Amino acid sequence: MAKKSFPLSKVYGLLEPGPVVLMTTAGKERANIMTLSWHTMMEFEPPLVGCVISNRNPSFDILKATRECVINIPTLELAEKVVGCGNTSGRNVDKFKEFCLTPVATSRVKAPIIDECHASLECKVVDTKLVTQYNFFILEVLKAWIDPSMKHPRTIHHLGKGAFMVDGETIKLPSKMK
Amino acid sequence: MAKKSFPLSKVYGLLEPGPVVLMTTAGKERANIMTLSWHTMMEFEPPLVGCVISNRNPSFDILKATRECVINIPTLELAEKVVGCGNTSGRNVDKFKEFCLTPVATSRVKAPIIDECHASLECKVVDTKLVTQYNFFILEVLKAWIDPSMKHPRTIHHLGKGAFMVDGETIKLPSKMK
Repeated sequence: MAKKSFPLSKVYGLLEPGPVVLMTTAGKERANIMTLSWHTMMEFEPPLVGCVISNRNPSFDILKATRECVINIPTLELAEKVVGCGNTSGRNVDKFKEFCLTPVATSRVKAPIIDECHASLECKVVDTKLVTQYNFFILEVLKAWIDPSMKHPRTIHHLGKGAFMVDGETIKLPSKMK
Repeated sequence: MAKKSFPLSKVYGLLEPGPVVLMTTAGKERANIMTLSWHTMMEFEPPLVGCVISNRNPSFDILKATRECVINIPTLELAEKVVGCGNTSGRNVDKFKEFCLTPVATSRVKAPIIDECHASLECKVVDTKLVTQYNFFILEVLKAWIDPSMKHPRTIHHLGKGAFMVDGETIKLPSKMK
């Protein structure tokens, strides 16, 4: 794996701009992958991430049972695989095989990292108070990984019905914001 | 106001890609504006939006008391005003005056729409169970407005410390996703 450790204090900068992510979970038979856009940062450090996962998705049950996952951030190059993962169900498909993605075992959680993604966040579930009513999980990021060789990772942002906005230019303004 | 009514069923497409938004609230003395990136869709229709608002911000107290707000989506042209709103406090600044933004009164909520933003979502607070622990509010969008004359609104996405990614190209892939 080309990824290096990434400071937890900087994780918010990866998720705040709203990229589509691929969540991996460790199912009993095999690891699953779910495409996901409904997430938000909730705390800087340790980083907390809130996300909504439909209870019709097998990842919902796995996450509820194992309380562990990895949030992987794909770039434009993986767009077709991202849509593929969103359009198939882990009930009858091994998505790693189907979409030629490489699972990498990691230390903190049983769910695998997706090697092809430019960043991966190992997470544990820390709050399930809103799971029954809203399918809303709160995750703590335990460990973050990033591929430093990708200098300008262009993430993708779902606009609905298979349309995605791709990262454009970056602007910098004088700011006191974190 | 150039904005027209926008279907609630399409609101997710505005917020899923993760734009920075400007939340307006109706304070006792004056309306306030807060810059915000920590939000996520939680349901399609009626649209539910979860968001984190620091309890050090006056908007937190106003939202908690009035249970109403407007989520306004600014475009690149407003980037300096967006940072300005994020770097000042409504305690001692009238942000509408300070940043030459135009408040427009609306019908469903007391908080004003920001005329210069390309879309505005009138919201009421529907769940405060996670407010004490996480500053996390769940909002229902009651009414949505969009400026149809802006054909290619380029939203901005916070990367941290005043850096923003600007919407780039849009790609379309065959997908069964909503």
